[in-house]
Amino acid sequence: MAERPSMCLLYTTWPAAAPAREAAAALLEEGLIACANILSGSTSIYRWQGEVKEEGEIVALFKTAADRAERARDRLVALHPYEEPCVIALGVETGASAPGFLDWVEAETRRGA
Amino acid sequence: MAERPSMCLLYTTWPAAAPAREAAAALLEEGLIACANILSGSTSIYRWQGEVKEEGEIVALFKTAADRAERARDRLVALHPYEEPCVIALGVETGASAPGFLDWVEAETRRGA
Amino acid sequence: MAERPSMCLLYTTWPAAAPAREAAAALLEEGLIACANILSGSTSIYRWQGEVKEEGEIVALFKTAADRAERARDRLVALHPYEEPCVIALGVETGASAPGFLDWVEAETRRGA
Repeated sequence: MAERPSMCLLYTTWPAAAPAREAAAALLEEGLIACANILSGSTSIYRWQGEVKEEGEIVALFKTAADRAERARDRLVALHPYEEPCVIALGVETGASAPGFLDWVEAETRRGA
Repeated sequence: MAERPSMCLLYTTWPAAAPAREAAAALLEEGLIACANILSGSTSIYRWQGEVKEEGEIVALFKTAADRAERARDRLVALHPYEEPCVIALGVETGASAPGFLDWVEAETRRGA
Repeated sequence: MAERPSMCLLYTTWPAAAPAREAAAALLEEGLIACANILSGSTSIYRWQGEVKEEGEIVALFKTAADRAERARDRLVALHPYEEPCVIALGVETGASAPGFLDWVEAETRRGA
């Protein structure tokens, strides 16, 4: 049996849905992701100059092959309107993920390779 | 001190909330998951026949014991309306998770074992 | 090159947004997290006394340094209205995450150290 390709789920936040969708479209065209899920609105809570602040943000998750994740991250950081955007790579357990989906992510991210 | 049971978070997408809820109910009855969280609407972006497409989807997360994750994934794939559904197993760090919750997930997924 | 700090994403659920926001504000003040994302409403499905139940819940994600994750988890469990709350630590791949964001999480969680 051939070894399954491994993948990565990039967890990101955006000031609005539009830039997340534009980034998703760009990375799809470049073959750096297979798919993105843009969640409906969320509230972010953080500290700024010593005070707790709340702000509406959009969480978006990008699915890519493990060996494309660093390039996908670099593109997301470059396209993102923030200076230090949240791009967190969540580890995926290959053995308990759907093999057909891992294959599809792999195939979709070979085009631009 | 006994070793804590380890768990897995299965990240999935669905065309609507109803099939995700039905799958959750089925896997609960079968003792293959302890709980599911069905998020409110999201937008999925992917390529289809060379074009970037957007579609409404539902993200659902299923919580199960690490040693039940493969069977839970197989059932989700079988119940899912797509041919190659997104079922991604996110790795969980046992040491920084709530011990009482890990125990509860373990207990809930022993019933059907 | 210096080694990048590692981080952890704590996945949690709450009966409503208010206690999640209050917990986020408390942990920010204590330097135990750098930021929280509180997602819009979700539906949780679980078993209770042999029956499948559905309930509205709020999913909230807390971002912290790997070496602060256990203390953050303990505080979340203490502040949470449930007896055995869902606090799941998702593993983060340092190499494919944004270095500037990892540094920011590290810096924000040193204050209270």
